Amino acid sequence: MRRAPERGVYDTDAIHAILDEALVCHVGFVPDPDDGQPYVIPTIHGRDGDTLYLHGSTASRMLRALADEIPLCVTVTLVDALVLARSAFHQTLNYRSAVILGRAARVTDADERLRALRVISERVLPGRWADCRPPTAGELRQTTVLSVVISEASAKMRDGHAGDPPADVTLAHWAGIIPLHTQVGGAQPAPDLHVGTAVPDYVPAGSLPRRI
Amino acid sequence: MRRAPERGVYDTDAIHAILDEALVCHVGFVPDPDDGQPYVIPTIHGRDGDTLYLHGSTASRMLRALADEIPLCVTVTLVDALVLARSAFHQTLNYRSAVILGRAARVTDADERLRALRVISERVLPGRWADCRPPTAGELRQTTVLSVVISEASAKMRDGHAGDPPADVTLAHWAGIIPLHTQVGGAQPAPDLHVGTAVPDYVPAGSLPRRI
Repeated sequence: MRRAPERGVYDTDAIHAILDEALVCHVGFVPDPDDGQPYVIPTIHGRDGDTLYLHGSTASRMLRALADEIPLCVTVTLVDALVLARSAFHQTLNYRSAVILGRAARVTDADERLRALRVISERVLPGRWADCRPPTAGELRQTTVLSVVISEASAKMRDGHAGDPPADVTLAHWAGIIPLHTQVGGAQPAPDLHVGTAVPDYVPAGSLPRRI
Repeated sequence: MRRAPERGVYDTDAIHAILDEALVCHVGFVPDPDDGQPYVIPTIHGRDGDTLYLHGSTASRMLRALADEIPLCVTVTLVDALVLARSAFHQTLNYRSAVILGRAARVTDADERLRALRVISERVLPGRWADCRPPTAGELRQTTVLSVVISEASAKMRDGHAGDPPADVTLAHWAGIIPLHTQVGGAQPAPDLHVGTAVPDYVPAGSLPRRI
């Protein structure tokens, strides 16, 4: 019996779960259609239902290009394990990735902009938004918020052991899965932190449920 | 005194180090210049001097498109820490990323193809190449190897604490750095592994020097 370890997934819940777990996404776009040179830039994202939010400085070249509603691709990847086969050829990774195609739109409604910033912050570190100073009007003026409708999206994932052919199973090499996790190290307080300010409870310790 | 925590880097050694540490890269390309739709796909990579290698199945749509020497962008990102500021606005990540622009070329020389596959394997898990079955002629026929010259490349990195403005330092919120590491979990032997085959010494345990 062989498993079918690698597969495409079009289930909305699975795509959303992958997006939510990834700490950063990679955004692909072509600033100048004349030269057709794509750029791929990492950034953080948030999700509210079927809407993906991106944000950044109004000075960001990427956000200014994307705000012109050019085609983009947002990809997130979670690497779950190294998968060792007896052969070099069957060596692989277990992973989950999601790809969204679409175009971004500038979010202009003040309420939606603030909600998007909260959604991005809460996805990266749940609990932090309520325990920090909210953005000022001046800071909001320096911030671009973009939305992407998650409609043309797919996911791909691989799970399980390597697919060694029967002849390779007799070889003496070790085979198996080496799981990878994101581990949170000890919090380092800012040097100008008030003495006695405790690390908040919502700061995770140990293994994160999400991978970088 | 404020540090300059975010900066662009064009130093070749720094770019190489980031490429070598990242487990996967994200490749951006535009399969059809007529619609200008970019795709961003994760894959593993290897590096030999100024040459970046990619590989995969000859059936891979990405590799077939890239082999036509279209413009591509290869980006790797290492997330080092969550950086908590007293304000939502100054919250950020510490990270290192590298971006390579260029075009891929198909590697046809048999020796270079094998060397590229070894370089990719050894970057992902040093020590494994010598301890697994090498590719057969048939497997090599099913494998595409591409090279990208690392010439138009840059890196960006952020390090250190958040840049809270003086007025925010008086706020009671905790601020500081939450480091993130890639942790290796317990090895899971393949169910058909010969009894007594030990996990090899080169399989890492504990924290990896690299981030996913």
